[in-house]
Amino acid sequence: MSKFAPQSADDISIATIRALAADVVAKANSGHPGAPMGMAPVAHVLFTRFFKANPKNSKWFNRDRFVLSNGHACALQYILLHLLGYKLSMEDLKQFRQIDSLTPGHPEAGHTDGIEVTTGPLGQGFANAVGLAIAQAHLGATFNKDGFELINNHTYVFLGDGCLMEGVAAEAASLAGHLQLGNLIAIYDDNHISIDGDTAVAFTEDVEKRFQAYGWHTLHVDNGDTDLESIYNAILEAQKETSKPTLIRLRTTIGYGSKQQGTHGVHGAPLKADDIQAFKTKVGLPADQSFYVPKETYDTYAAVAARGAKLEAQWNDLLASYGQKYAAEYAELTRRISGKLPDNWEKALPVYTPADAAQASRKLSEIVLSAIVPVLPELVGGSADLTGSNLTRTKTMIDFQPESTGLGSYKGTYIRFGVREHGMAAIANGLHAYGGIIPFVATFLNFVSYAAGAVRLSALSKHQVIWVATHDSIGLGEDGPTHQPIETAAHFRAIPNLDFWRPADGNETSAAYYAALTRRQTPSILSLSRQNLPNLEGSTIERALKGGYVLHEVEGEDLTIVSTGSEVSIALEAAVKLNSEGIKTRIVSLPCWSIFDSQPFEYKLSVLRSGAPILAVEALSTLGWQKYSHEAFGLAGWGASGPYKKVYEKFGLTGPNIADVGKKVVDFYRKKGGEVVSPLVKAFDLTGGQH
Amino acid sequence: MSKFAPQSADDISIATIRALAADVVAKANSGHPGAPMGMAPVAHVLFTRFFKANPKNSKWFNRDRFVLSNGHACALQYILLHLLGYKLSMEDLKQFRQIDSLTPGHPEAGHTDGIEVTTGPLGQGFANAVGLAIAQAHLGATFNKDGFELINNHTYVFLGDGCLMEGVAAEAASLAGHLQLGNLIAIYDDNHISIDGDTAVAFTEDVEKRFQAYGWHTLHVDNGDTDLESIYNAILEAQKETSKPTLIRLRTTIGYGSKQQGTHGVHGAPLKADDIQAFKTKVGLPADQSFYVPKETYDTYAAVAARGAKLEAQWNDLLASYGQKYAAEYAELTRRISGKLPDNWEKALPVYTPADAAQASRKLSEIVLSAIVPVLPELVGGSADLTGSNLTRTKTMIDFQPESTGLGSYKGTYIRFGVREHGMAAIANGLHAYGGIIPFVATFLNFVSYAAGAVRLSALSKHQVIWVATHDSIGLGEDGPTHQPIETAAHFRAIPNLDFWRPADGNETSAAYYAALTRRQTPSILSLSRQNLPNLEGSTIERALKGGYVLHEVEGEDLTIVSTGSEVSIALEAAVKLNSEGIKTRIVSLPCWSIFDSQPFEYKLSVLRSGAPILAVEALSTLGWQKYSHEAFGLAGWGASGPYKKVYEKFGLTGPNIADVGKKVVDFYRKKGGEVVSPLVKAFDLTGGQH
Ligand SMILES: [Ca+2]
Ligand SMILES: [Ca+2]
Repeated sequence: MSKFAPQSADDISIATIRALAADVVAKANSGHPGAPMGMAPVAHVLFTRFFKANPKNSKWFNRDRFVLSNGHACALQYILLHLLGYKLSMEDLKQFRQIDSLTPGHPEAGHTDGIEVTTGPLGQGFANAVGLAIAQAHLGATFNKDGFELINNHTYVFLGDGCLMEGVAAEAASLAGHLQLGNLIAIYDDNHISIDGDTAVAFTEDVEKRFQAYGWHTLHVDNGDTDLESIYNAILEAQKETSKPTLIRLRTTIGYGSKQQGTHGVHGAPLKADDIQAFKTKVGLPADQSFYVPKETYDTYAAVAARGAKLEAQWNDLLASYGQKYAAEYAELTRRISGKLPDNWEKALPVYTPADAAQASRKLSEIVLSAIVPVLPELVGGSADLTGSNLTRTKTMIDFQPESTGLGSYKGTYIRFGVREHGMAAIANGLHAYGGIIPFVATFLNFVSYAAGAVRLSALSKHQVIWVATHDSIGLGEDGPTHQPIETAAHFRAIPNLDFWRPADGNETSAAYYAALTRRQTPSILSLSRQNLPNLEGSTIERALKGGYVLHEVEGEDLTIVSTGSEVSIALEAAVKLNSEGIKTRIVSLPCWSIFDSQPFEYKLSVLRSGAPILAVEALSTLGWQKYSHEAFGLAGWGASGPYKKVYEKFGLTGPNIADVGKKVVDFYRKKGGEVVSPLVKAFDLTGGQH
Repeated sequence: MSKFAPQSADDISIATIRALAADVVAKANSGHPGAPMGMAPVAHVLFTRFFKANPKNSKWFNRDRFVLSNGHACALQYILLHLLGYKLSMEDLKQFRQIDSLTPGHPEAGHTDGIEVTTGPLGQGFANAVGLAIAQAHLGATFNKDGFELINNHTYVFLGDGCLMEGVAAEAASLAGHLQLGNLIAIYDDNHISIDGDTAVAFTEDVEKRFQAYGWHTLHVDNGDTDLESIYNAILEAQKETSKPTLIRLRTTIGYGSKQQGTHGVHGAPLKADDIQAFKTKVGLPADQSFYVPKETYDTYAAVAARGAKLEAQWNDLLASYGQKYAAEYAELTRRISGKLPDNWEKALPVYTPADAAQASRKLSEIVLSAIVPVLPELVGGSADLTGSNLTRTKTMIDFQPESTGLGSYKGTYIRFGVREHGMAAIANGLHAYGGIIPFVATFLNFVSYAAGAVRLSALSKHQVIWVATHDSIGLGEDGPTHQPIETAAHFRAIPNLDFWRPADGNETSAAYYAALTRRQTPSILSLSRQNLPNLEGSTIERALKGGYVLHEVEGEDLTIVSTGSEVSIALEAAVKLNSEGIKTRIVSLPCWSIFDSQPFEYKLSVLRSGAPILAVEALSTLGWQKYSHEAFGLAGWGASGPYKKVYEKFGLTGPNIADVGKKVVDFYRKKGGEVVSPLVKAFDLTGGQH
């Protein structure tokens, strides 16, 4: 495979892809024909000449990974998946952008066979690709042996101007250069067009020079529209450079072949019928037929698929031999590929009693990590330059670094992400998408917001990413309101399929890790304190795993206080005072709303029961607490800079003040009279349940 | 000012700044001494030799702007403000990082005299500086005349490795290069240290080359610790380059002078007492005194302040002469500096009746912009490459571009931000901080999340930034769940001092703009539909300006439905059905929670009154609605790709289904019995009010 050999079906196949893209978008009357038509040649060359995958088993572990970072061009990807024989029929292509189809408006991982990662939100796919490449480098270094190159796939990513303008991609690109990811090949569709028109209006930087500055190998192809040989040679050259990632700048004409080619008129709207017909006539396809694929094109792609099936079969043989020679490594690799956690790993989780010393939950998190990292080698992650504050690097970890840096090796599991929160999160999505890895990432809770674009995609794509989000409230103290989250819990609690944990002590921290590690299709954010928290009477891992539970029970209560994290012990202090004054107060800890919500109604109602008012206490915005409580005490505005105890005092988050608030609540509901009904008792349940 | 002239007090002043930084952090027992000690020389040279500002009037309009993007180094900035004679006493320095002090842990605009923008969250300040420089370029082009260079200040920004790793800074840097911002000078503290240790672990790119790729002029100084002349010459050279922004890479030693200099040990923790004493002894300061400033240092900075006062006096004279020669421009400039809107501008706001055609609220927004842009020249903004979708560029606008591009001029008010949401938002904060400008920015609502880090700083810093956030729900249809916001409203509604508007029709859209333009210290996000919305009977600008109001009144109601934006007309359709079936249903529109919350309690209770259940309906997460309603109908999970009406049907957001849900609610509360009390009736009000 060293010299480009033209095939008779090349031209007609590329024309077919272009025509199909136009047809797919026209039938949907919605979508983006321009980029698919422009990138059809490079897609054809890549998939027919280079790409190693078995369409009949889209989960073959050593497959090349393909990411379409400019996900709006997904008509192209769906067409290729169809031609290659993935589980995507011509009928599916006709259902493009229709309700419940396999061909939604942007590619969704886990939804459509052969889609590796969810793309569309610009920049994400590129950063995911960096994660995929890190995963390959790490697992290859960990499991490959002489003569057994089990994990050596390439990661290919297509991206457009939009991806390159996004900061998330810039962060990932800089890190990829530092990490010398030689198996990563990015192909930049340099078509000079974005939605606002010519890129001259906003994007005039020298992209190749920028990537060279990051440490990338760069190439360019001047005619991406028809010069297949140059495209081929560029990809080949990119493969030969194994110590740096490669960016190929491919000059293309958006909507190539359309009457409007090269303009933003073909970017995001269907081509007119006469334009499509004229194109088909020009390239020798039947002008009166839509969704037409010549036999030679199907044959060409069938051959590619057969090649892929053979590659997988060879690989399976290699894996079997590996198993005979390296039984332990084989067992471990196949375990990790299967996604099964090692037996009894959970026995490593620390358990606490109230006699144990008070500790910050970030420290409790470090204790968990120190205990589980040795038994869970699939934990791969790091911090956005806050290692010493997030406490994420345990003593047994070594850094994931190129050997040439002298700072670690690709076998290392600790990634130094730099101050790149958004890139880190999107890279973590890629790490998870690769398989065999459970990624964890860390920063201050407040700066998880920088990564919000990637966090929602973790949840949508079911990537099990674990956030170690420390310094989770005004309790961080002196750094002040710029660093003190207010809105953050509400934000993340409103994201579907995301567990936001705010553990109150050691057992709850262990529970949060247990849930985060066992919920294989759900990302978790562990919101952790900077300040010390006592270990609580009544907390256990099992109880906390229900998401919410009665920490301190009292029969015939006058008041229930529900709280999370660092405020639970303050609530308890208030309860002691109230109980001593004859106001019977019980305490509920609610560390994870989403998991609590999934419990049986009867259980939930036993925790947040009717009969007495429920007061919520949390050092954050109260938004959302009304779902679980009659009254909510929290922050009405921004925090403040100062020693943390003074900050808590300033905002009334002390035992005595919460006791006063509790009295006010009890008095109010007594005066109001009537039955106090649990806020959980509702007329209907959106998720389909009925009460 | 062409050749560096050493001054006798240079060395002692720099030593004093370093010692003060150590003292300030040591007394607080919290903070970052390293960067202030490292950057003391460049700060001293910049402020004594170049900086044009009058400490006695920190609001002088043509002052040079200084931004400390590495805001954790704020001990340096506070010390300089004190030495220069801003309203910051030695006592204030001693209160560093204490509750309610003028010297919080990170600099906060509006809180401390002389602080231009809030920094600390990394990368933000750098992007703010790009906004400050755009503002200068625009206002200079708009108001300067031959012989009247009224607006020609420089913007200086200090930044560290952390800022350079952040995507928000990368986005802003690329745009700044494109825009050829010649008066922007960035000084990069290249100290090879970040929190994780040596930058070799994660940040090995060639920063100068990257900035050259963006179109910047780059310089470097090899010895930023002691070589004042080279520092001086670099800044001078940067000033001479007027067609490009300049990055000066300044090699410094973090914590210079400390025993731990050059290590991350001096980054984020106080120096030990003996280290500080040894340093003071070494540089000739009294080792036994803290917070000591030699007379010659105060004298030096007093001379700088006197120079600044003189500069302002000269400028005031120039402005007066300008007023005599260019009366209209003078009136307009001084109006804009004062922040006053032109008389009667609000008469341009469109008003609608139900007879007017249904339109998308993004289109209604365009109609407002088309009407007000001609009367509000201070509106400066644009879109993150979604101009044709956000509908933000009105016919009378021209692009803000360098003349050399042939695409516009600096007089233009429409900024092509490119696909750079986070950079755009942080730049908008800088535009507002400059003064004389009301910035607006645009993208899909879902992608405002990419900018979350800057949005919360708009709110914290009281920057009046207006977001045109279109495609605000599953109503965007085919683009699918990757683009359909779920959590976004909850996120932004939980941010203090931020108005999240979701207008239901034309009058509410006009109201949203009225509020966004008149609330001068509050950012607003206008959440706007892609799909058409009818103009509603009962909506008026005045009513909507209360944030919530009764759109459709019925006495003795069985049910109130409260809704926002595109779902209000669906609620009305349900109400028509319910009323026809004898279930008396009233409708409340609640377009802006934060403004509604600020109304008198009696008014709020009249809108969301007791007596019948209240059902909330919104095509987003229901999180937070429990504050205003007994029951909430919305999305329990992700959206879907498809034509929007089918998507709405899929999720039950139709008149008939909402009517069914309404019946369920009415039945439930009838069966439950007892009084139905408004959810607004609470035991206490966090903001201090009592009910
Ligand atoms: Ca493009
Ligand atoms: Ca640094």
